[in-house]
Amino acid sequence: MMEKPLTIPPRTIMTPGPVEAEPSVLRAMSSSVLGQFDPDFTAIMNDVMTMLREVLQTENHWAFPVDGTSRAGIEAMLGSIIEDGDKVLVPGFGRFGYLLKEICERVGGDVKLITCDWGEVFEEDEVTQVIRDWKPKVVAMVHGDTSTGRVHPLKAIGHACRENDALFIVDAVATVAGMDVLPDEWYIDGLITGTQKCLSIPSGLAPLTYNHRIEAVLQERKSVEEGIASSEDPRGMDRRVRSNYLDLSQLQDYWSPKRLNHHTEATSMIYGLYEGLRVILEETLPARFARHKENEAALVAGIEGMGLELFGDPAAKLTTVTCVKIPPGVDGDAVRKQLLDDFGIEIASSFGPLHGKIWRIGTMGYSCQKRNVLAVLNALESVLIWQGVTVTRGNGVQAALSVYQNQSKTAAKSLLSS
Amino acid sequence: MMEKPLTIPPRTIMTPGPVEAEPSVLRAMSSSVLGQFDPDFTAIMNDVMTMLREVLQTENHWAFPVDGTSRAGIEAMLGSIIEDGDKVLVPGFGRFGYLLKEICERVGGDVKLITCDWGEVFEEDEVTQVIRDWKPKVVAMVHGDTSTGRVHPLKAIGHACRENDALFIVDAVATVAGMDVLPDEWYIDGLITGTQKCLSIPSGLAPLTYNHRIEAVLQERKSVEEGIASSEDPRGMDRRVRSNYLDLSQLQDYWSPKRLNHHTEATSMIYGLYEGLRVILEETLPARFARHKENEAALVAGIEGMGLELFGDPAAKLTTVTCVKIPPGVDGDAVRKQLLDDFGIEIASSFGPLHGKIWRIGTMGYSCQKRNVLAVLNALESVLIWQGVTVTRGNGVQAALSVYQNQSKTAAKSLLSS
Repeated sequence: MMEKPLTIPPRTIMTPGPVEAEPSVLRAMSSSVLGQFDPDFTAIMNDVMTMLREVLQTENHWAFPVDGTSRAGIEAMLGSIIEDGDKVLVPGFGRFGYLLKEICERVGGDVKLITCDWGEVFEEDEVTQVIRDWKPKVVAMVHGDTSTGRVHPLKAIGHACRENDALFIVDAVATVAGMDVLPDEWYIDGLITGTQKCLSIPSGLAPLTYNHRIEAVLQERKSVEEGIASSEDPRGMDRRVRSNYLDLSQLQDYWSPKRLNHHTEATSMIYGLYEGLRVILEETLPARFARHKENEAALVAGIEGMGLELFGDPAAKLTTVTCVKIPPGVDGDAVRKQLLDDFGIEIASSFGPLHGKIWRIGTMGYSCQKRNVLAVLNALESVLIWQGVTVTRGNGVQAALSVYQNQSKTAAKSLLSS
Repeated sequence: MMEKPLTIPPRTIMTPGPVEAEPSVLRAMSSSVLGQFDPDFTAIMNDVMTMLREVLQTENHWAFPVDGTSRAGIEAMLGSIIEDGDKVLVPGFGRFGYLLKEICERVGGDVKLITCDWGEVFEEDEVTQVIRDWKPKVVAMVHGDTSTGRVHPLKAIGHACRENDALFIVDAVATVAGMDVLPDEWYIDGLITGTQKCLSIPSGLAPLTYNHRIEAVLQERKSVEEGIASSEDPRGMDRRVRSNYLDLSQLQDYWSPKRLNHHTEATSMIYGLYEGLRVILEETLPARFARHKENEAALVAGIEGMGLELFGDPAAKLTTVTCVKIPPGVDGDAVRKQLLDDFGIEIASSFGPLHGKIWRIGTMGYSCQKRNVLAVLNALESVLIWQGVTVTRGNGVQAALSVYQNQSKTAAKSLLSS
């Protein structure tokens, strides 16, 4: 059988990921291959580490990607520090809390999951109290959970971790490069993100960073592969990480000047990461965060302007994901299907108890732009009208346009007065 | 700090991987992103499965990539079938045997490694005898070990596995799409390859296939994530695979019509895999294998023609990697450095006991072409002369050209007589 050449239809992607990639990232990814130990390639790896530290806003030395999607990085981090029977606290406020629980259990942890209602977040002292009482070795938590569109304050929890000698691991897949994430200030010991959301790089890498507290654990558990070990290398077996592929102590050696052979680095994805980070630093983080805020504000005004309601606690709303209640009697998946089929626009449903109850609209990275926000508002209104739902016709986009106009005025004024 | 735009110098890559990617693969990878559940994307995933079965020459239903480099696929396969204390036999004839041992140990196996001298392979009955006597649950073996440039016959070993109810797992990273690999005929239950060698796609995916014997084990160990499980889904914990990211039972659900959410598929890498497989099927496997044979023959004639010696048992030579003894007194790494710096050509050293003793020259995928073989022969001769090594000047390339001419004549004759 002979397959047809690859053809990709144009799409406006307004989901919580994967989102549209920066065009220059896609161009970078089509560059020719370099050998993994070619000095021109290892120089790119070093530049990636430098830029990653800046984008992750950390002074940590270690900042590099794991070759896999976001959860590969999460599992690498957790699996490299958790040993059989270690107490792990997971405060979960959405689906991805369950994922952290599952990963921690699989790698051998004794996991305590505490939950709150989906759409809410915890009072910080609900969490810090458990840390003080139960004294976990590790606290693993999501920063922004896209399944419910909530973001969690982390500093007080991080501080309690440090005071009680727990390692604080944060899944910041949905927030890094879209809003402020401050690992050092918030006492985060290990932080993981993904490429396919606000970094606007195709899915496939999980950039992460960790501090000396994590590195000390890795050092104790380190074991070099027999086929490449020298006589001085540690070959301890007892506390060895259960995965070879996701063993951070080995990955660290590969990303260090030693360049100790591990996997064959994913050349084109690293090119994409390089260019994606470069574009972010060129825009600057403050400008990027402001852009995400502005488009969120316009989207929210538009959704409310057409008469739809938002889901969840407004005080904990995630900038990068807007959850919209599906009006009673409306088939949410039929609306999504028509948006994709007729308008080429993708929005998301949600998981478990929220499936069929909410739509999720992402404003992340390159997808987070005025053109896209206006397109999704107009198309959603059209589809709802087509499917017989009552909306306030025309109001949504007008409300969004007003937000953009006011933001421009504010920006112009601050420019004039500066 | 502001980094410069990505610039990639041109290279001729004659290593055992990563090798040069097909230009059309690189172009495909720069296509825009599709959502992971977009029907146009899931159609691509299905086409990838169809083409993968054909390239892997199997009737197995399951054939899909793991999102990670080759060893991610190897670990997914082994970690999903090996449980604590399971007996695993690893017949190792190079570095990658040690890697299999390490992975099997880490995921809980009771591993017996048998070895032979590097550069040799086993007599088949040395291995089959151990299978009959020790009765392992799993036999894990490399097909072509690039570290020594040897390829192992597998059919008799596979047959012994089937007769003794062992699961036979094969790492065919270095051979698939470069020479014949016949999982069904050779009684291979699970087979893993990588993209960065004879498939000529950048590193980052590990395509694999497995049969109903493996699937039966996965079915017993399956557990669906709590955040997305329905009440009928299995949630067994006792025999659950230790990794979430590399749990084949979950990956299988994601690659099935269920499309049960797991990771976010690596969009651009899947585009690359699609196009890479398509190009291979367009060339046809027999023509591709013949091309690899022809270029190997020319390279070998060239190496011997300039007076250098090959390393290892000729009867077990791997078509896709040619190991060359570094002449006494020559600094092998200095030669490689000059090849790269002055000629833009990369060849490889080796690992452990062979480091400094041999060079390894790959003839894989898109890199495996006349132009490249002639370039590496000429450049190697020039560097050796420059560094004061005695070679038979001019003879290497002439010998290679003769091989190409004879092959053309043979091909022309068979065309005339047909």
